[in-house]
Amino acid sequence: MKNKNYNIAIVGLGNIGLYLYEYLIKNKKKINKKTNVTLNIKYVSAKSRSKKRRIKISKNKWLKNYLQASKMKDVDIVVELIGGSEGAAKKLVFNSLKNGKHVVTANKSLISKYGDQLSKLAEKNKVNLEFEAAVAGGVPIIRSLKEGLLANKINKVYGILNGTSNYILSNMRNMNMDFKMVLDKAKKMGYAENNPASDLNGDDVKSKILILSALAFNSFINKKKIEVEGINNVDRIDIKNSEILGYKIKHLGVSELENDKLIQRIHPCLIKKESYISNVNDVFNAIIVEGKPVGKFVIQGEGAGPGATTSALVSDICSILRGNIKFPFSISYFNRKKIDTLDVSNKIFSYYIRLDVLDKKGVLSSITKIMSKNKISVKRLIQNPFKGKKFASIVIVSHKSKNRNIIRCMRQLSRKSFIINKPKFIRIEEF
Amino acid sequence: MKNKNYNIAIVGLGNIGLYLYEYLIKNKKKINKKTNVTLNIKYVSAKSRSKKRRIKISKNKWLKNYLQASKMKDVDIVVELIGGSEGAAKKLVFNSLKNGKHVVTANKSLISKYGDQLSKLAEKNKVNLEFEAAVAGGVPIIRSLKEGLLANKINKVYGILNGTSNYILSNMRNMNMDFKMVLDKAKKMGYAENNPASDLNGDDVKSKILILSALAFNSFINKKKIEVEGINNVDRIDIKNSEILGYKIKHLGVSELENDKLIQRIHPCLIKKESYISNVNDVFNAIIVEGKPVGKFVIQGEGAGPGATTSALVSDICSILRGNIKFPFSISYFNRKKIDTLDVSNKIFSYYIRLDVLDKKGVLSSITKIMSKNKISVKRLIQNPFKGKKFASIVIVSHKSKNRNIIRCMRQLSRKSFIINKPKFIRIEEF
Repeated sequence: MKNKNYNIAIVGLGNIGLYLYEYLIKNKKKINKKTNVTLNIKYVSAKSRSKKRRIKISKNKWLKNYLQASKMKDVDIVVELIGGSEGAAKKLVFNSLKNGKHVVTANKSLISKYGDQLSKLAEKNKVNLEFEAAVAGGVPIIRSLKEGLLANKINKVYGILNGTSNYILSNMRNMNMDFKMVLDKAKKMGYAENNPASDLNGDDVKSKILILSALAFNSFINKKKIEVEGINNVDRIDIKNSEILGYKIKHLGVSELENDKLIQRIHPCLIKKESYISNVNDVFNAIIVEGKPVGKFVIQGEGAGPGATTSALVSDICSILRGNIKFPFSISYFNRKKIDTLDVSNKIFSYYIRLDVLDKKGVLSSITKIMSKNKISVKRLIQNPFKGKKFASIVIVSHKSKNRNIIRCMRQLSRKSFIINKPKFIRIEEF
Repeated sequence: MKNKNYNIAIVGLGNIGLYLYEYLIKNKKKINKKTNVTLNIKYVSAKSRSKKRRIKISKNKWLKNYLQASKMKDVDIVVELIGGSEGAAKKLVFNSLKNGKHVVTANKSLISKYGDQLSKLAEKNKVNLEFEAAVAGGVPIIRSLKEGLLANKINKVYGILNGTSNYILSNMRNMNMDFKMVLDKAKKMGYAENNPASDLNGDDVKSKILILSALAFNSFINKKKIEVEGINNVDRIDIKNSEILGYKIKHLGVSELENDKLIQRIHPCLIKKESYISNVNDVFNAIIVEGKPVGKFVIQGEGAGPGATTSALVSDICSILRGNIKFPFSISYFNRKKIDTLDVSNKIFSYYIRLDVLDKKGVLSSITKIMSKNKISVKRLIQNPFKGKKFASIVIVSHKSKNRNIIRCMRQLSRKSFIINKPKFIRIEEF
């Protein structure tokens, strides 16, 4: 193992880029010990060069144009930290791979959208495309799927994949606070972005699930028939109700094979209080992999933030330094499969149902009639009158029924005049 | 990435060896897809060749003598599944590395005893020595420490590392059963060996902690001043008491740096019921790594059994097939450090204390006097009379105090005539 030199260019100097820059400067010796390679930060690039930063970067490191990183002869590895699935990030990564540079990126949007083409390009040019930081920050789930668990036939991968959502749900429960209040708190603490839309509506988790599915099932990225729902509609009262019923509400991404067909779904779930995953709180992410022969495997850690992300980026960089050339998606592009997808409508769940109704005669019998017509039967029912008002809240835990039945049932209920708020259901997940 | 051929010899055909053999035959194509290497099981060896096995192994695969595996020109990888730190296993692994063979082993005793010398030898001969299966079965903790988390400065690694112990403690609690009864059940279910001594007395966990410490802290294996205690002394009543106090009893292995000194300890602990690790039950293993910048990282899975172990062995084998030569202990032998050790005596804990006493006047005041002399102060105390007898059980949760104080206190108490059973303490661990 001879000592070598590698040059790296970091494109994008936000929180994460800066943290990585400082880490690599401070830990040059450590990295050399672990890889036998001397790693030099040769170039950097950022949208604004003049912006005030906490560290000084010498003039000769700055590229005139970010795309130079993909062309310079003295660059071996390009780290893309621009973000977004189009524009600069896309251009940089495609060009870098084309020109035979290794690429490390934290960009889940880009990888979930163009991962297939990018991996083909990387394989053709015999370079690495690494994206550990794109899913669950500091949690080495990508590396585990590609290496530690590669012996396994996986049939399900799922988990808590969005730190912001998990922080909000955990705090709504523990602090007995409203969605809006916790969101404001999360923003103040830096756990939610100023525009947290993609964290709250499930899109962020969708990108991650797309990537995990491809890795777990050796398939191409498959964007069809995905169920995506965020935490926007979870009310404090639902959290309270589920608490009474012995559950917690968690937002999950799930990817599973049923009869060799792929179901991908992202939505809030009720999970038994004692279960492992319902005790994963705050900004933590946790991913569970079920496969043979390993059984059930769990991995958990901080899902975001500059520290956790840098941990992932450095593991990718060092993998390249050690000359560990791997297929970006575990197996070659030419061996990856197309898998058929199923939408969630035939899948069977129990449901938590909440109906806010006028408190008058015949309402309950009307509800149960509609439910029974739609094959949704009651396992447990709690009716709470609103104090001093003519409304009541009916909470139902149903027996198991197809997803399409609950959708139809909700639609029919919502048309009834005694229903005062949009009827709501949340799936109950059994682990 | 050209297609290559590798030959493997499996030495040891117990449960695990057989499972691995079958797996490799069945998954030859899959392995080729993931590594571009065709893997052939060239030779096998086992203590008894004539023993009835569920699979047929062709005659020309059998070695006359197990040590041939280390010598044959057409063997690239030797898988050692003999077990034990001396004798055949030791001879085979040393000789294989000397002769330039890669070695994969599940042997924690061997690695924790001779890991330093073996890694030096492997590095000298530029071959891999892989031992993922030696710690926590299917859980890829070794690979995570060497790759996924390599960016981190780790200060603590700990967890549930023995499936048998965890199965027994979980079931004593959940089934309200005695140690002995659960042990018998565990034997029947195949969760405990016929001679489970090393699982129950902490020795098994000790081997694993020795290996994890070396990997986490980039140090040599350090066997000094280790606190080792098994679960043999945990009674059903202790589990009940801790339940009442809001805790569970778990058996942990802990390795931590305090002021750059290493403390390694293996013992039962009381852990808050709601904490993550107290919800890891049955035969599951879980390991927690605390480091910078990643924060807290958790990995969990089945700790033993042929399936989980094969998952680990195959990940090691494939790492070799991909040409991913790595230092066996993350960094070179010549860069590893000696770390000073501290014994546990200065470490500060709260304690669960159980004293079975004669139920007579002055006992409590005598106890509290001895405790206070030894700087153990009471945070909570419950005295339960034994029905219809002249005995009582006093359960105390103490404030924090040095480990040496509790030892001295227990010793002094045990001399008192009103103490009818050996006084007992269990450390309370805060996470």
